[in-house]
Amino acid sequence: MIEFGQGMKIIPLGGLESIGMNITAFEYKNSIIVVDCGLSFPTDDMPGIDMVIPDVDYLERNLDRVEAFVITHGHEDHIGALPYVLRRVNVPVYATRLTMALIEKKLEEHELMDVVQRHIVAYGDILKLGEFKVEIIRTNHSIADSAALAITTKVGTIVHSGDFKIDYTPVFGDIADLQRFGELGKKGVLALLCDSTNAIRPGFTMSEKTVGRTFDTIFAENVNRRIIVATFASNVDRVQQIINTAYRYGRKVVIDGRSMVNVIGTASELGYINIPEGTLIDLEEMKNYPEEKMVLITTGSQGESMAALSRMASSIHRKVSIMPGDLIIFSSHPIPGNERAVSKVVNELSMKGAKIIMQDTHVSGHACQEEIKLLYALLRPKYAIPVHGEYRHLLAQAEIAESLGIPKENIFILSSGDVLEITDDDAAVVGQVPCGTVLVDGLGVGDVGNIVLRDRQNLAQDGIIIVVMTLEKYTNQLLAGPDIVSRGFVYVRESENLIEEARSVVESVVLDCLDNGITDWLKIKNSVKDELSDFLWKRIKRSPMVLPIIMEVE
Amino acid sequence: MIEFGQGMKIIPLGGLESIGMNITAFEYKNSIIVVDCGLSFPTDDMPGIDMVIPDVDYLERNLDRVEAFVITHGHEDHIGALPYVLRRVNVPVYATRLTMALIEKKLEEHELMDVVQRHIVAYGDILKLGEFKVEIIRTNHSIADSAALAITTKVGTIVHSGDFKIDYTPVFGDIADLQRFGELGKKGVLALLCDSTNAIRPGFTMSEKTVGRTFDTIFAENVNRRIIVATFASNVDRVQQIINTAYRYGRKVVIDGRSMVNVIGTASELGYINIPEGTLIDLEEMKNYPEEKMVLITTGSQGESMAALSRMASSIHRKVSIMPGDLIIFSSHPIPGNERAVSKVVNELSMKGAKIIMQDTHVSGHACQEEIKLLYALLRPKYAIPVHGEYRHLLAQAEIAESLGIPKENIFILSSGDVLEITDDDAAVVGQVPCGTVLVDGLGVGDVGNIVLRDRQNLAQDGIIIVVMTLEKYTNQLLAGPDIVSRGFVYVRESENLIEEARSVVESVVLDCLDNGITDWLKIKNSVKDELSDFLWKRIKRSPMVLPIIMEVE
Repeated sequence: MIEFGQGMKIIPLGGLESIGMNITAFEYKNSIIVVDCGLSFPTDDMPGIDMVIPDVDYLERNLDRVEAFVITHGHEDHIGALPYVLRRVNVPVYATRLTMALIEKKLEEHELMDVVQRHIVAYGDILKLGEFKVEIIRTNHSIADSAALAITTKVGTIVHSGDFKIDYTPVFGDIADLQRFGELGKKGVLALLCDSTNAIRPGFTMSEKTVGRTFDTIFAENVNRRIIVATFASNVDRVQQIINTAYRYGRKVVIDGRSMVNVIGTASELGYINIPEGTLIDLEEMKNYPEEKMVLITTGSQGESMAALSRMASSIHRKVSIMPGDLIIFSSHPIPGNERAVSKVVNELSMKGAKIIMQDTHVSGHACQEEIKLLYALLRPKYAIPVHGEYRHLLAQAEIAESLGIPKENIFILSSGDVLEITDDDAAVVGQVPCGTVLVDGLGVGDVGNIVLRDRQNLAQDGIIIVVMTLEKYTNQLLAGPDIVSRGFVYVRESENLIEEARSVVESVVLDCLDNGITDWLKIKNSVKDELSDFLWKRIKRSPMVLPIIMEVE
Repeated sequence: MIEFGQGMKIIPLGGLESIGMNITAFEYKNSIIVVDCGLSFPTDDMPGIDMVIPDVDYLERNLDRVEAFVITHGHEDHIGALPYVLRRVNVPVYATRLTMALIEKKLEEHELMDVVQRHIVAYGDILKLGEFKVEIIRTNHSIADSAALAITTKVGTIVHSGDFKIDYTPVFGDIADLQRFGELGKKGVLALLCDSTNAIRPGFTMSEKTVGRTFDTIFAENVNRRIIVATFASNVDRVQQIINTAYRYGRKVVIDGRSMVNVIGTASELGYINIPEGTLIDLEEMKNYPEEKMVLITTGSQGESMAALSRMASSIHRKVSIMPGDLIIFSSHPIPGNERAVSKVVNELSMKGAKIIMQDTHVSGHACQEEIKLLYALLRPKYAIPVHGEYRHLLAQAEIAESLGIPKENIFILSSGDVLEITDDDAAVVGQVPCGTVLVDGLGVGDVGNIVLRDRQNLAQDGIIIVVMTLEKYTNQLLAGPDIVSRGFVYVRESENLIEEARSVVESVVLDCLDNGITDWLKIKNSVKDELSDFLWKRIKRSPMVLPIIMEVE
């Protein structure tokens, strides 16, 4: 165990290296609290992987000191890893009402409801967790019940913004608690961990309400069309606005897509969304209403191949067929990396004769530069720790902080595992704790690592050639083979010559080895591998994985 | 062979289904000419594939009628497939000077210079090709010597815009020949095939010169930094402007990246770029000059992993190390699908302390809506055939054409292989010719098809499990195995139990089969496959490829 000083420590356990895996440990004396516990989605170089979760070895080894998880809001990149992590670090979870409801959905799926202690908190609550006091502060974001945290010890107060924007006219709830931020700032804030997602964007993020006005205009101009709106499953306020507009224009609403049905169901039960009596109907009832009296709210705004909208686009949706004249609104921006998938869906929908609208139908849930400045101005932190974003986003926030007068040496861009220690008169990275990522593939957690991933990438590039042969034990006689079987390499029927040449290359290598009395199978395998790889590269400029297998018969 | 009427036929052989593979056959009586012959780059679902080229079976079967390839400009998506296609359809190639020089680079690499007849053409030339007259018309684009074509038969004149924009202040050469377009339009144009790339963008594409002014401003504000500019290898005019600005600010210029060195070398030999004496230096000489007197122009603006800039970003460039304070200008926009790769490079460069500029440092080479309208207004075609773009782009141009008074029934969005026949009083899709794509992987052309690709995708998802056993012929005794070998499945050392369980599932299946006197190996293999797949799905929710191999010993 690393010995640290007597300050307050901030340790990002996910962070920069795996965007999305938001999990930060705060440590003071014998107490550790953990803010958020998110998952990140696999990148292109992780074929077959379903999700990436943080390695919480450090927390596990300090389990007796971990007081709680405090969760800022209910998005996957903040709650998604909880069911996995809680199995190893089972400590109480604190979250606001909607956030907790979404967490509980997960715990139910993982059959963890009985073993995890849960506490619902409200804005203004102050939790006492070991050496820490944690205050829950109201913010705005693209999901209701989002919170910033003021984390206080004897050393001072650190504010974690969570994911936030400042919305003066929110659809649900109230403006972020700017007064409380001002009050805290006046008393003195040691450090601010602030959302950097939009730190490269000038200006102010528009209010969620502006999207509602756009919906009104679009609905007014398209009274004769069926309207389909695709948006993020968790954006309850967006769905609320679509429902409001639909109601005003006398349309019925259907919600499609499993995750959206789940979230909206939960939000509706808890009163976070207000659906006028008789407005919401089932997918099955759609046929009873004229098309121009329907609005379908659906998942798939990111072009996800199995989401409802994508299934409609490729004509494999069992209940909805796109018709010429349908109006489809993308109420979202493509997340970087999804542009091509979104384009594909848009093209497919266009080919079916649908009209597409993608402009002015989305606002971000994250603060732009002016909002970030406002938070700094209210809190006036001594130290700035940009969080939540790619390096260039963190850097952009660092530049904002510097422009506001925070000295460069008081600004910290942390890597995963960095231990930043803050005392009342100094701050420095004092060490590193081991941390990293764990890959989840199907039911397997952590059984796929770099070697397996590299094999998968190689297999995808040029396929595999398997060379099998049976040898007689002791005599080393070749009893059968060598045979060649390939998958993902070439279309064998059109490449008979190549395969036959490869076979004879292998055969002569094997016979050579046996003639020369080589009895070490590993040597034979290596020779086969080298010679065959060489041959294939020279002949066709490809490098399939070559896998020799020797069977032994007594 | 399909029998058509006596009109002029337009047959896109690449097109919509494979963006980039620009190749269009024009057919009249006994003559066929082919405009362009491009390649497209593989999409995510084509692992291991290097490029995609058109299937020219139709041309090959009508070889005696094919008069020539006429190439509009020297970009890969218009010339890239030539070396492959010319092997099967060896007819003369016509192109302007720079375009031909770039084609010849390819023919040299493929050792085809001696067998391909080539003709350099100039703006204003009228080629007589069988039943066709083809006029070469000056346009502007992001590469010099780009041309539109006026293709005339007794039926009338069809204009193919090529890739174009209208630049009133081009860096090299003259404004697109608007006068000639006007003249042609006055005489009467039957149809226009027009570039749709930017048809969804309002307004006018800015002149290339505006980028030069941005460079001037940036260089003036950064006199103390080394400057690195990443742009497209083929954008000679962009490189010219960087060199101009560098010269004005007394900086030396180094060009890095194989494709850029090639293109700029060719352009320079032919006089398409003007480099002041002593300005260009070798990469090796860089160390003799102070950093703030250097400009490095490099490939890699799309985040391509092996390009020069990406190698600098990941510290594997052998000659250039990024230093804190370096200024890196991205003179490009990410092509859709490359956003994440570009972000990765930007983050890596930022971590090394480089300053990044990505704003106002690029203009498109393609016409926006107002330029498209201008071309329609000059030509006043009877029929509109939007080309070059995704479906939504073609659709946007169709809407523009309609807004300019072209009746909806005179606008055609064609799919690959559609045969559009135009007479002087009618136009209709009258048939289909077979066409498609051919995948190039290493030296293999067409030996990877859908089955191989699907295998590669499966292999990438969950890897492969190979089950091998040796059986005695006639007696069906199990002599060795069954053994299990896996790749890309799980980290075996951490999953010993799972593998052992899988082995015993397989063993009992095999012994069952043998006990029941099943001698059909295919049946044994299928049982192994089914049972093992079932077991793995239930146990771990994964579906690796299962490949049973039986060896036979007498």
